[in-house]
Amino acid sequence: MLPLTTFTPPTIANIENNDLRQQLQQIIDLKTKPLGALGRLETLALQLGMIQGTLTPHIHQPQIRVFAADHGLTQHGTSAYPSAVTAQMVYNFLQGGAAINVLARQHNIELKVVDAGVDTDFEPHPQLLNYKVRHGSRDALTEPSMTEAECLAALKNGMKVVENLTGNLLIVGEMGIGNTSAASLLLARLGDVPIADCIGRGTGLDDAGLQHKTDILTQVLQRHSEAQSPLDVLAALGGLEIAMMAGALIQAASERRILLIDGFIASSALLVAERLTPGVAQYAIFAHHSVEPGHAHLLKLLNAEPLLNMGMRLGEGSGAALAYPLLQSACAIINEMASFSDAGISEQNS
Amino acid sequence: MLPLTTFTPPTIANIENNDLRQQLQQIIDLKTKPLGALGRLETLALQLGMIQGTLTPHIHQPQIRVFAADHGLTQHGTSAYPSAVTAQMVYNFLQGGAAINVLARQHNIELKVVDAGVDTDFEPHPQLLNYKVRHGSRDALTEPSMTEAECLAALKNGMKVVENLTGNLLIVGEMGIGNTSAASLLLARLGDVPIADCIGRGTGLDDAGLQHKTDILTQVLQRHSEAQSPLDVLAALGGLEIAMMAGALIQAASERRILLIDGFIASSALLVAERLTPGVAQYAIFAHHSVEPGHAHLLKLLNAEPLLNMGMRLGEGSGAALAYPLLQSACAIINEMASFSDAGISEQNS
Repeated sequence: MLPLTTFTPPTIANIENNDLRQQLQQIIDLKTKPLGALGRLETLALQLGMIQGTLTPHIHQPQIRVFAADHGLTQHGTSAYPSAVTAQMVYNFLQGGAAINVLARQHNIELKVVDAGVDTDFEPHPQLLNYKVRHGSRDALTEPSMTEAECLAALKNGMKVVENLTGNLLIVGEMGIGNTSAASLLLARLGDVPIADCIGRGTGLDDAGLQHKTDILTQVLQRHSEAQSPLDVLAALGGLEIAMMAGALIQAASERRILLIDGFIASSALLVAERLTPGVAQYAIFAHHSVEPGHAHLLKLLNAEPLLNMGMRLGEGSGAALAYPLLQSACAIINEMASFSDAGISEQNS
Repeated sequence: MLPLTTFTPPTIANIENNDLRQQLQQIIDLKTKPLGALGRLETLALQLGMIQGTLTPHIHQPQIRVFAADHGLTQHGTSAYPSAVTAQMVYNFLQGGAAINVLARQHNIELKVVDAGVDTDFEPHPQLLNYKVRHGSRDALTEPSMTEAECLAALKNGMKVVENLTGNLLIVGEMGIGNTSAASLLLARLGDVPIADCIGRGTGLDDAGLQHKTDILTQVLQRHSEAQSPLDVLAALGGLEIAMMAGALIQAASERRILLIDGFIASSALLVAERLTPGVAQYAIFAHHSVEPGHAHLLKLLNAEPLLNMGMRLGEGSGAALAYPLLQSACAIINEMASFSDAGISEQNS
């Protein structure tokens, strides 16, 4: 199907630097606290220093982009909510009433909504970016979700959204009724995980709904058994918002931004991005552990240890926004805490 | 020894109210998100509403009080750091260089340090409250840590620190070389947990140090086998800062404040407070799961599910300060999110 060469990824710098790692660790170890007593906050500070290539990591003007799209597969009844909810939630975002609006306001994170392919035409709005590739993805049960051209357009649009963006931290959120199915399909194929282990109740399926979703997704995987390269898999099984998110993450990593990764859908976009452009995942901080069953598999594939485990499964970038102040804390700890010698404090008994 | 009647606790209101609970749950369920999709953030919002007895929980002017004291038992080599570090860290707090200073600044939480019994005399300082009962607790291996009068004075001083304090949320932090031993002893006796399960490496003991600590604490428990009532146990095995923290928590609960509970030592103070004055724990939100092994037992006794699990073991109130923005998020979610009817969004498919 698609030759991988049709997508030319940007260069991703390798963040590994032994000298920097050792210097960061030493700075952290000399802070006025027992060795390692701040636990994950210390490893987070080190990770942020490595991503930014500095001894003094700082976050400024953090950005959330919420990518919205509809999914052709929902016509087979794979979701608990009707497709119309995608557009209704876009209006909710624009009116400031959704969870992600509330959390973004709390933490002063700039939020914009990206129409990646909602099956509704919106009036222009200052907070809405129009990158609609088509009115919803195609029905993956009968054809690829996106043609080659559509998939590449979505990837490139995602890159454009991030190119030269203000700030140095990006959260990609999403809204798309049916997108847990797309994420499950991507995980099953790219991670070689049995589909039943990748599937959850999404926004609230009952037992019969869950069985039906499993049956449909099994058929979709069979229909696209030839799709094996990352780009082919994304086009056949993904969604317009997930493709845009992958493009956004690739561009952001190439600009050495911190990628604060939300839950199941955002992690599936990161898996796609990492497979298309190895190295992207070095820039990722994993915000939370979603209760979507597939997320545990994705996290394992990505070698990720999320910061929070709050039993959430909303998407929108909400878990990432919730975890954001922990990153600010990690920066503050490394930049502002006194060292033992600064404070004239006795060392540990030998 | 001490009759319990020497401590007259204030009245603690029962927060349970079925109507309020149902109304809060309904407000949360009608927000624009799938049912339960915000997980722990939803139960937290409900809990804050119940504590404050309102449909619109709000936090204002949050306060941290860091209680510092020395421990007579440290002369037996139970800690990795010398006792002198307690006073050195008090100076570090006053200079703004400790982890708790950094986190309190980040979240705009007012911080004051309380001298509950440090073995050093400090010059007056605007951020230091002098409630010193004595220069460190007594050696629990040979006598009770506090006499009846000292223990009651510390409890009452703790109550005074909180009485009519500004704001409606309290974090009690601590600094006291040797206080993990005191917390372990309190847990062992009040929770009937084998001492070996209550003991950890504190600020960094090695294997031999851990064995020595276990031996000493076993002897201390034998020495005070007659101490069984909560007040007797606190006096025999506790510390001046833990007694003050217990008093502070009791007073705060009686004024219906939110108690944001830090790690092992703060939880041991809450256990004491709850045993002295049943009902206090209703006002507690547990911030984080410490890596001190005894904390898991304390959390189980208190029926607690902490918000964070970041591998921390610093004390000072640092885990509570780190978790604080999650409480703000929970309030914002319940107060600011649109409902389905506000936003004109379709309900779930039946």
